[in-house]
Amino acid sequence: MGLKSHNAAFCAPCFLKFFRRQVEKGIKSQNMFTKDERILVAVSGGKDSLSLLLELKEMGYNASGLFIDLAIAESSTPARLLVENFCAMHNLELRVLELAREGIPIPEVKKTLRRPICSVCGRIKRHYFNRCAIEGGYAVMATGHNLDDEVARLFSNVLRWDESYLATQGPVLREKDRLARKVKPLWRLTEFETANYAFLRGIPHHWSPCPYSEGASFSVLKKQMNGLEKIMPGRKIDFYQGFLARGRDAFARTARERALLTCPGCGMPTSSSDLCGVCRLKRLMGVSL
Amino acid sequence: MGLKSHNAAFCAPCFLKFFRRQVEKGIKSQNMFTKDERILVAVSGGKDSLSLLLELKEMGYNASGLFIDLAIAESSTPARLLVENFCAMHNLELRVLELAREGIPIPEVKKTLRRPICSVCGRIKRHYFNRCAIEGGYAVMATGHNLDDEVARLFSNVLRWDESYLATQGPVLREKDRLARKVKPLWRLTEFETANYAFLRGIPHHWSPCPYSEGASFSVLKKQMNGLEKIMPGRKIDFYQGFLARGRDAFARTARERALLTCPGCGMPTSSSDLCGVCRLKRLMGVSL
Repeated sequence: MGLKSHNAAFCAPCFLKFFRRQVEKGIKSQNMFTKDERILVAVSGGKDSLSLLLELKEMGYNASGLFIDLAIAESSTPARLLVENFCAMHNLELRVLELAREGIPIPEVKKTLRRPICSVCGRIKRHYFNRCAIEGGYAVMATGHNLDDEVARLFSNVLRWDESYLATQGPVLREKDRLARKVKPLWRLTEFETANYAFLRGIPHHWSPCPYSEGASFSVLKKQMNGLEKIMPGRKIDFYQGFLARGRDAFARTARERALLTCPGCGMPTSSSDLCGVCRLKRLMGVSL
Repeated sequence: MGLKSHNAAFCAPCFLKFFRRQVEKGIKSQNMFTKDERILVAVSGGKDSLSLLLELKEMGYNASGLFIDLAIAESSTPARLLVENFCAMHNLELRVLELAREGIPIPEVKKTLRRPICSVCGRIKRHYFNRCAIEGGYAVMATGHNLDDEVARLFSNVLRWDESYLATQGPVLREKDRLARKVKPLWRLTEFETANYAFLRGIPHHWSPCPYSEGASFSVLKKQMNGLEKIMPGRKIDFYQGFLARGRDAFARTARERALLTCPGCGMPTSSSDLCGVCRLKRLMGVSL
């Protein structure tokens, strides 16, 4: 397997070593977490998050998975089955949170709001991911975002010159009040590399796309950046690391800190002066808080 | 002619009106210059700079052209002929500066340095462009850079997170000491639009590429940005205007002002504590300063 950006080619065992070194470097260089800290990994059923959970565990980190069951029959059911089987097979600890039990299964939310719900669904997942971490006493939550995800997001933020996102984007978002630390340990690895890892480790690639998703809006940006990468190998990681070293600070210097309040419904942090977004949704749907 | 980013389509006379409005808006919104100021337009023989000179003149601005004859037989000779004919035909004032007379014709420079000379040639052109403006009493120098040029340059600066370029890039660079104001009045117009203007105005598109050039390094970046523009019309101008409104300041706040000294050879500003780059080159080539 040839990796132009690293000017190297690997056989399978050496690729797995290379992969681990990149994860280790991604963690250490950013002071993400130590072996003493408990890590909650958000697993969706996709290859990236399962790869991350497996790799962290095998590296000796204290990691366990969290699957949020959105109650979407077409996608949540097969994804949950896949995640449960995978974790059982590899002896990985897994917690499952069911939105149906919380009174806000996504199909019902969709019916109530009658509009595209990707952003609401994202907000709900972030809320419970953080809440599970805080209430479960985890030091840090980890997601499987890879270099391509991060570079596409950065490109999107730059195209819009979104100052507040540019001030905070990165592989680590430090904890604050009742917001747990958030990390992306795969940030140094491309989609191609994580896919290759997943393939070599026998991680099933079967994946049922969400029936409500309009298709990933980042795919165009990923395609453009991969076009550049082909001509100038190493461009993606340079762009991202250059941003971390020189770009982000320029925006962070003047970014206003958003004041966070406490939601009277769930006790989690919110920028709203009343209920947080999830509790407002619950109230709208007649669910007791 | 359809312009998706403006959600409009034009017949030829209306396109020319649209073009003029965009130039006017580009000038006024950036306080580039007034009708009282003398403007020196760098003309290379390419369609953009000739379009700019013609349009400024017809808009009633006090503009004249400057052609720098690099003494490259294959490209300078036909370009100079084209420029001289065009200016004579349209009654446009033109100055010609000959590098051969200065003792540094580019083919000789190339022989002396024996390496790619694009950056040296660019430095020489910028030097004489500024010197002609200052010594000729012009308030401002103008170049024919269009939106695609500017967006590709911005993209390149962002990919490298080059803080000093990001702090200063823009359609106007204000005068300072003996550096004349530099402006790019076509910054709101795409390459497609300036080409269309040139076609409608009968500006000859014959153009002999420089035999020493390795091909434009920006063409890859232009291609990527045009790929995005196709899918998201208006993205290019939004990216550039967003940078001017929100991006540039973030970098300008901490940019260190480069101290400029005066070259003892030519009296022009230089960051060197000795001779400026052009005078050093002359000395190297045995030309008296």
